[in-house]
Amino acid sequence: MVHYLDNAATTPVSEKSAEAVMEILRDYYGNPSSLYSIGIKASKKYEHAREVIAESLGCRPEEIFFTGCGTESNNLAIFGAARARKAWGNEVIVTGYEHPSVQNTVDALKDEGFEVITIAPKNGVIEPEEIISHVSPKTVLVTAMMVNNETGAMLDVPYISKKVKEINKRTAVHCDFVQGYMKEKIDLAAIDTLSASGHKINAPKGIGILYMRKGFNLRKTQFGGGQEKGIRSGTENIAFACGFAAAVEEHKDIEGNARKIAALKAMLTEGLGEFDNVTINSPESSTPYVLNFSFEGYRSETVLHFLEARDVYVSSGSACSKGERSHTLEAMKLPSKLVDSAIRVSFGLQNTEDDVKALLDGLREAGQSLMKAKR
Amino acid sequence: MVHYLDNAATTPVSEKSAEAVMEILRDYYGNPSSLYSIGIKASKKYEHAREVIAESLGCRPEEIFFTGCGTESNNLAIFGAARARKAWGNEVIVTGYEHPSVQNTVDALKDEGFEVITIAPKNGVIEPEEIISHVSPKTVLVTAMMVNNETGAMLDVPYISKKVKEINKRTAVHCDFVQGYMKEKIDLAAIDTLSASGHKINAPKGIGILYMRKGFNLRKTQFGGGQEKGIRSGTENIAFACGFAAAVEEHKDIEGNARKIAALKAMLTEGLGEFDNVTINSPESSTPYVLNFSFEGYRSETVLHFLEARDVYVSSGSACSKGERSHTLEAMKLPSKLVDSAIRVSFGLQNTEDDVKALLDGLREAGQSLMKAKR
Repeated sequence: MVHYLDNAATTPVSEKSAEAVMEILRDYYGNPSSLYSIGIKASKKYEHAREVIAESLGCRPEEIFFTGCGTESNNLAIFGAARARKAWGNEVIVTGYEHPSVQNTVDALKDEGFEVITIAPKNGVIEPEEIISHVSPKTVLVTAMMVNNETGAMLDVPYISKKVKEINKRTAVHCDFVQGYMKEKIDLAAIDTLSASGHKINAPKGIGILYMRKGFNLRKTQFGGGQEKGIRSGTENIAFACGFAAAVEEHKDIEGNARKIAALKAMLTEGLGEFDNVTINSPESSTPYVLNFSFEGYRSETVLHFLEARDVYVSSGSACSKGERSHTLEAMKLPSKLVDSAIRVSFGLQNTEDDVKALLDGLREAGQSLMKAKR
Repeated sequence: MVHYLDNAATTPVSEKSAEAVMEILRDYYGNPSSLYSIGIKASKKYEHAREVIAESLGCRPEEIFFTGCGTESNNLAIFGAARARKAWGNEVIVTGYEHPSVQNTVDALKDEGFEVITIAPKNGVIEPEEIISHVSPKTVLVTAMMVNNETGAMLDVPYISKKVKEINKRTAVHCDFVQGYMKEKIDLAAIDTLSASGHKINAPKGIGILYMRKGFNLRKTQFGGGQEKGIRSGTENIAFACGFAAAVEEHKDIEGNARKIAALKAMLTEGLGEFDNVTINSPESSTPYVLNFSFEGYRSETVLHFLEARDVYVSSGSACSKGERSHTLEAMKLPSKLVDSAIRVSFGLQNTEDDVKALLDGLREAGQSLMKAKR
């Protein structure tokens, strides 16, 4: 039996999501931009998917734009907001523990003349007031992730966005919500743009969304046939939009799911208490869906493969950094011995106590047999 | 029975392609960037899809990059090539009948200081020598479509690219091959970048590729986790890559298929000969897969819906322009009465003589009953 505990990297596609995809592939092949019934039928399915997602965020359907992935959504939001405001400002504020799709995009803005202010985490947490204190009349964009992908650290982006607007109402606020969507509730009130991705909630890889507040000024980055109201040209991926919506429906009970996952996390945290070489890296206030800890004395990769042999799948950090040292843990200035032995466990709705038990058993065995290997 | 003759807009997903998608969604959910077996298994499937596509183009797998659609491929190639060459040149040469994903992208380059030279079609055809004659030491990019999406007009981009390189070896040559891929053979020899899209050959909507010659200097447009060798960050759409590859396998007999489709086109052309109000707009040398004609005296939309009621699906132009006047026919400077009555028929491998017969029957009826409506 597979114990997959790397749901922050990606998730198994749920049966309902796969079926929704298949229904479109088999029966709705029309181009939604076509003028005849086959196209219109496909378009209706696509727009229904948009409505489901809009409802989940409490926004209007016309504020949801489908993209190819969360990375594309982040790029579009960041380039689009900064470039549209270049005439009057050049400062961008970002946290020091963003996903590469935000961090590297903000870095690329430097080549276009923007100055970037990076707010480092303290004890794994970003202080909202520190972001807010840097907002100036020149600040074109504040971008911050709601849930960190490596530690699960939470940041109150809705609060930040309100405060930012009080100081400079023209400043755009973008929220990377990829790890939070359908796991944490969010108040979009003062947020301008927000990204989410299907494959983090049991939909397929290859579909993302950008929420963009109505009336927001964004300079598009992809040009073509004018699909998605001109914001994201390209023939619509109806199948995955519908697969995404089906997965959203399955995640609707955000609070109930969070309670269930919090129980698994509590069980894991308690179990880890028996190890004297374990340090928890996730802050107290982190999302229930992620627990990052260091298994001191053993390199992450060694433990990861040891667990893999027991059908337990965890990661050493984000999948996107492919085995490189954890960007977030380094930003937290953890000592090397903790960074190099870090393990990220991330839960999904399909996980059970059996998965936690298998992980704890695996770690116990690792502590015994790998210890010998070290001597 | 449905007679779908709008395959240049999009195609029905083949059973084999859908099955390939489903296999991945059900059994290969790992993140290809993950270090453990579940990720590696998914990665192998993904790389196999890349190999199939590379083989179809006669290039190396590492020269194929997956994207979210043909539009994204065109944007990446055009922005990427022009921006990487900005230090020494500012001229871009493009044909006057490109798809909006090329035309509008090239237009956007004007905001970045580039000058655009547009070569208009003459009698529906672009003269290669006219493109070549405009190449200068300042030409950073020549971009041209191999098969026009509205008339099927062909352009010898391989020849153009060779000649362009003789004049300025630093000039990049991009080929929009979306309507030609797996329908026409191509010699990549002097072409730097080339785009193709899955949904034009019975794979799902939401996957494209960019061929990029090894060693080619391209400035990426999307930043993130460094997937696709850093050229296109974003979690990989393994399912659709495999669905794309399955469709490619089904289209392998390019010459045999072209003969079959040419027979359907000949049957249609012959049938149209009986109408005294029909003018063929596709040039003599067009691809067998597209036939554009005007059904004079009747507005395109009227005929389109009349045929639709008989389960025959054609279009008035490209789906991307959603009922607007045909961009290509206008570039050809056809009289209004021909532009406004234009019908595009585009074939796919699933079409048969029955489809052509149904279309001709429908047109005959249209000529009778719509005539009455006009009086």
